[in-house]
Amino acid sequence: MKDVTVDGSRLRSTLEELARFGATASGVSRTSFSAADAEARAWLRAEVEASGLSLRTDGIGNLFVTVAPAGATDAPAVWTGSHIDSVPDGGRFDGALGSMAALEVVRRLTEADVPLRRPVTMVVFADEEGCYHHLLGSTALVRPFPPDELAALRGRDDDLLVDALGGLGWDVAAAGRTAVPAGSVHAFVELHIEQGAVLETSSADIGVVTSIVGMGGGRLEFTGRADHAGTTPMAMRRDPLRGAGEFLAQLPDITASISETAVATCGIIGVEPGGANVVPALARLQLDFRDVRREAIEDLETALVAAASDAAGRHGLEVTHTRDSITDPAPLDSGLQDLIESVAAGRGHSTRLMPSGAGHDAQNMSRLAPTGMIFIPSTGGRSHSPAEHSSWADVEAGANVLLGTVIALATR
Amino acid sequence: MKDVTVDGSRLRSTLEELARFGATASGVSRTSFSAADAEARAWLRAEVEASGLSLRTDGIGNLFVTVAPAGATDAPAVWTGSHIDSVPDGGRFDGALGSMAALEVVRRLTEADVPLRRPVTMVVFADEEGCYHHLLGSTALVRPFPPDELAALRGRDDDLLVDALGGLGWDVAAAGRTAVPAGSVHAFVELHIEQGAVLETSSADIGVVTSIVGMGGGRLEFTGRADHAGTTPMAMRRDPLRGAGEFLAQLPDITASISETAVATCGIIGVEPGGANVVPALARLQLDFRDVRREAIEDLETALVAAASDAAGRHGLEVTHTRDSITDPAPLDSGLQDLIESVAAGRGHSTRLMPSGAGHDAQNMSRLAPTGMIFIPSTGGRSHSPAEHSSWADVEAGANVLLGTVIALATR
Repeated sequence: MKDVTVDGSRLRSTLEELARFGATASGVSRTSFSAADAEARAWLRAEVEASGLSLRTDGIGNLFVTVAPAGATDAPAVWTGSHIDSVPDGGRFDGALGSMAALEVVRRLTEADVPLRRPVTMVVFADEEGCYHHLLGSTALVRPFPPDELAALRGRDDDLLVDALGGLGWDVAAAGRTAVPAGSVHAFVELHIEQGAVLETSSADIGVVTSIVGMGGGRLEFTGRADHAGTTPMAMRRDPLRGAGEFLAQLPDITASISETAVATCGIIGVEPGGANVVPALARLQLDFRDVRREAIEDLETALVAAASDAAGRHGLEVTHTRDSITDPAPLDSGLQDLIESVAAGRGHSTRLMPSGAGHDAQNMSRLAPTGMIFIPSTGGRSHSPAEHSSWADVEAGANVLLGTVIALATR
Repeated sequence: MKDVTVDGSRLRSTLEELARFGATASGVSRTSFSAADAEARAWLRAEVEASGLSLRTDGIGNLFVTVAPAGATDAPAVWTGSHIDSVPDGGRFDGALGSMAALEVVRRLTEADVPLRRPVTMVVFADEEGCYHHLLGSTALVRPFPPDELAALRGRDDDLLVDALGGLGWDVAAAGRTAVPAGSVHAFVELHIEQGAVLETSSADIGVVTSIVGMGGGRLEFTGRADHAGTTPMAMRRDPLRGAGEFLAQLPDITASISETAVATCGIIGVEPGGANVVPALARLQLDFRDVRREAIEDLETALVAAASDAAGRHGLEVTHTRDSITDPAPLDSGLQDLIESVAAGRGHSTRLMPSGAGHDAQNMSRLAPTGMIFIPSTGGRSHSPAEHSSWADVEAGANVLLGTVIALATR
């Protein structure tokens, strides 16, 4: 078998074609089950069929394209893919890269007549960005959604998922029957942009993902007392922003006390009553914290709440913590990490083992089969923004590592 | 002349009557030129006329009731009064106390036939709470509003002041002709609730105001970089809340470095883009800072901006400061301070010299005539809230100190 590589210029033009659907000035707004998403799905079907392949849609909107060797059509398949929905005002690479690279993989396997021993399936997961449910499509593969849960799922605009699916002409009854049989997946590999700046900063070509971090979250409320900003001497105040300020300034020290990989973020803050001349009565902070081990996330939560409590205690404030349940970290398959590293090294690319700080469908797939993820650098670490970008050289390099990994998994 | 005192039970019932207009569960919402304000004005006119006095309204809605001795009707008058408009969802004492106590003063002067040497004028200033313009009514006494400035004044609901005045049937053309002739006011004295907890904490009965603090304000914007909350290691972040947090925690030290009277408040804070899983790009803080001397306010502003700049510099952030112009402090008349202290001491009340941290119409009146202010304790320091309260004993004590001060000013 001669060396098989992706067609870099075709991959680029496919990605550029996809970016027409929901295009913004320099990114895309292609949220799940929107008109732009429907147009992209129709375009993708035509692309697949033009390659002599066929596309199947399951009840929740996951798309599948399978290339199977004669005589082994029912063998456990090697899956690869990602998603084509975006966040509102998002970028052109998140999800699109892994999806279009998977299309390139099944095209090249067919064109090059690669001697497969088991099927290879391209998958496009529905609603990865969680307009209706966090990682909707891959969750539906791991466990079916009961009809009543499905009927209650609402989107960002408060519309019902079942209305969105019905409006697209789908069989809503089939939406609860999407679970994949145990043992039907041989392995899953996903190519994705890093969405951070670790690879760029460390000048590594390819990130080999060791685990997808777990996360906790919740709301901290510092309560003090509203006072007139002019008539209340500083020493008589119980200003919740004093405690909140100390807490925010400590975040890097708190995470460093847990591990090198721990992160904690306050992405939303507000005060009540919120008048220019009123000392606030309440400061509300939305927290997001992550790490690669569940115990570390639990320790991080404990440390954050303790620090908030200490800061509150120093200044006569009360603090309450409303916690979200912790999402478990998903360790990825070590054998697949080795394989990806070998394939990348064999093509001359430097690699870096790293956790994924963002959630991906791969964390659900890791419950079905050995799972691996391949990262390429994100320019400036930008993501979920029109500024999201990766170089075409990195796109091609990543797709070739994906292709090589899939071939290794499907031919041995 | 026998000892003249206010009728405490009448004062209480007058305050309770006034509280019917715009009544909320335990406070009032009686914003300027609202229906509730108009009803309160009509009720006040009837009260005044029932006492055999007459009420005059100027072009901007200031109300006047004058008691003048025969032969001295044109002499410079002793003024006393406050305002009857409230903040939205405000309390029943702010402004109402000084207005109804002034009504009690002119009633008692008449009833007791006090031998005045000059007129005494009760004044109710329009729109003290600044729905249309900060201290609208008293500002219009110091300088007339030019027609074009007047035509442009808009309220909290974006309505035009001239429409509000026209809707009440007033002569809008007269609104620009409200300035009081120099020399027509002999002195001004205002009774008010403290709106803070200094008197309550120090167990003083009466506050004698030394000056009305000046204030500065503005907006601080810490700019960093938006990053994915999961994929960006702590050390690679430029999180504006880290700098803002350090700054907020320093506020008490910064004010203490300026003076004992300096205060600084962040009453509004927000971040952009404001996503739970996004490190903010921008943190915006609204500042309010006050002190009794203009130089101290300028020094405070310099120290605040320097601290913000230092915090920003430590964490790779930029900071910009959009400043509001500084309102000058208004020192009150020292002779009037002595007089108020003597009158209070003569009635057995303990006094405390103190600045007013809140703005009052008295700061405008101090540009027209020697001005004094009398404070009574606010329970728990509450104000601008339905929880605003002062005891009826303190209300009567304050009104008697006001009456005694006015008599001393008007009979000697």
